[in-house]
Amino acid sequence: MKTGRSGIEVVKSAVRNLRAYSLSPDRATIKINQNENPWDAPLRIKEETLRRLADRQWSRYPDFIPVELHRRLGEFAQWDADGVLAGNGSNELIQALLMVSVSDRKRVLISEPTFALYRQVATVLGGQVLSVPLNDAFQFDTETLLRVIERTSPDVVILCSPNNPTGCQISDDDLRRILSTSTGLVVIDEAYHEFSEHSVVPLLSEFENLVVLRTFSKAMALAAFRVGYLLAGPALVTEIRKALLPYNLNAFSQAAAEVAVELYDAELKPLVQAIITERDKLFSQLSEIDGFGPVASRANFMIVKSELGPKKVFGELLKRDILIRDVSSYPMLGDYFRFSLGTPEENKKLIAALKEI
Amino acid sequence: MKTGRSGIEVVKSAVRNLRAYSLSPDRATIKINQNENPWDAPLRIKEETLRRLADRQWSRYPDFIPVELHRRLGEFAQWDADGVLAGNGSNELIQALLMVSVSDRKRVLISEPTFALYRQVATVLGGQVLSVPLNDAFQFDTETLLRVIERTSPDVVILCSPNNPTGCQISDDDLRRILSTSTGLVVIDEAYHEFSEHSVVPLLSEFENLVVLRTFSKAMALAAFRVGYLLAGPALVTEIRKALLPYNLNAFSQAAAEVAVELYDAELKPLVQAIITERDKLFSQLSEIDGFGPVASRANFMIVKSELGPKKVFGELLKRDILIRDVSSYPMLGDYFRFSLGTPEENKKLIAALKEI
Repeated sequence: MKTGRSGIEVVKSAVRNLRAYSLSPDRATIKINQNENPWDAPLRIKEETLRRLADRQWSRYPDFIPVELHRRLGEFAQWDADGVLAGNGSNELIQALLMVSVSDRKRVLISEPTFALYRQVATVLGGQVLSVPLNDAFQFDTETLLRVIERTSPDVVILCSPNNPTGCQISDDDLRRILSTSTGLVVIDEAYHEFSEHSVVPLLSEFENLVVLRTFSKAMALAAFRVGYLLAGPALVTEIRKALLPYNLNAFSQAAAEVAVELYDAELKPLVQAIITERDKLFSQLSEIDGFGPVASRANFMIVKSELGPKKVFGELLKRDILIRDVSSYPMLGDYFRFSLGTPEENKKLIAALKEI
Repeated sequence: MKTGRSGIEVVKSAVRNLRAYSLSPDRATIKINQNENPWDAPLRIKEETLRRLADRQWSRYPDFIPVELHRRLGEFAQWDADGVLAGNGSNELIQALLMVSVSDRKRVLISEPTFALYRQVATVLGGQVLSVPLNDAFQFDTETLLRVIERTSPDVVILCSPNNPTGCQISDDDLRRILSTSTGLVVIDEAYHEFSEHSVVPLLSEFENLVVLRTFSKAMALAAFRVGYLLAGPALVTEIRKALLPYNLNAFSQAAAEVAVELYDAELKPLVQAIITERDKLFSQLSEIDGFGPVASRANFMIVKSELGPKKVFGELLKRDILIRDVSSYPMLGDYFRFSLGTPEENKKLIAALKEI
């Protein structure tokens, strides 16, 4: 027989009312629902990482601050190592950044539809989320963003560029105007920047209020390892680090990230090039199929308007062992589905299946 | 020339006033400052983990919820798998638990000196920390704890047992009284329970307000991997999970934890036994050296009173290539240093060095 209190009444009511984040448990051979790199990490990267891991003492804590990884990431991104912060996925860095800057009544400006985590974390922290919709062509509406920034002075602006799930990208000129107008921080999540062959990192030396986020889960083919990094001015990085728990990044993920950076040009860049080629090919092919309207993308995924209804497309593809993402619950995307680029073979099967449907 | 705002004024002043958590950068061959397992993870565990990792696709995200790991942890700890939650180190789980339960003016009761993170995280979240000192023999002062619980009804009580850095342990009878008296949650961090050959897990079926924390960083010899887990009632676990970011635990660490659990009895338990034997031997040896007063411990470390002053002992040992922990800034421990048990050979060198000093 139980005695004492249940303890659960101690949990804040805001948390109890929150629905737990979840993901469809569907599985399929062709998995193009999470914007992952469709190829495995190249063998040289796997072998070199495993070699370094075998040598290390597993019973010892990782470095308190991963100085060596920060140095390499700085070199790789062409930014000061003191302005680099690695995390357990870029999710952790978004959370840390918002933890040090957002509390009750602080304003966070985003542009939707976008990655759902920004709104979720800002809300949990008590922030007020302001949202400017993308325009009808699914591009950033810079003029409206500027007007909202002038009127409300948000503490943090977060833009995902290229944007998940639409694939649009903000131009450097528009970003400069946003940075100059903002009195707070402007975060560019460039998780997919490799597929656009463009980065906003050079703007870091012009604007102290710019923060850039990157990840190893997409082009770098290391989603299993959960590594992200943040680039900003060193003083700002010192503050954001205070919200990270000690030893947040395990020694394995540190090693894998170091190896991936060392071998990027030789091993990963060709895969990125292949994905870009496939993306442009699939855009043309889809444009020619009646009933489908693809939206041009700068990332490794694409949204497609479908007259059949996205839930029907999702179900029909799943029957054919292909798993895409149903994004129809996002604002503006009621008639759209999203797929990430697979290998050329997988993409061929996708096109064949869509023609059949 | 920089333009725009610096952005740093967006950071909350409470954060800016916080000193960044840091660790002494000293290094030595005999490293007994972090309560790690002095042996590396056994070769069979390393090889089997590396084999499973080589087989997996690194470009794919880990499981959304590590169901298989939770099942094995449940079996290992003899508790319902629905009441298990794995995290990126137990630090992350402490933070998640406090995030869902603590906000402005909520009360968190701890017993100091203890692991510094409880106070730090509770403070960052705006909670009020109440602290009951250990008694003069460095044991938990249950009577005072009960009086404070009755008077203040803390939302969360956190006890580290065996306690870091003193090594004392709360008895099941005393814990039952605390659980029955508390109207909130009672957290037992049993990071070091293997070295006491006792666990409070059986009490989970008696008390719904009990939460147990465990780690793979000590007896399990996997500090490099950052794996911890939490055991509690399934309904409570569902709430705490809401504060964890998606994919918080990377696939590598999941695999290593699964292998360690499978091979614990054969490979790790003998190392734990050896550490217990060494601990009891060193306690006797230190008691016989003039000027040192060791405190009996149920963990893999020990505090020692020194007439020389702990900073002097720390420096003298460092000169002899031995790194201990200076805990003299903790409450009550002005005259004490802490060391963790090394291998028998390392412990011999420690004793020899202390005799010399």
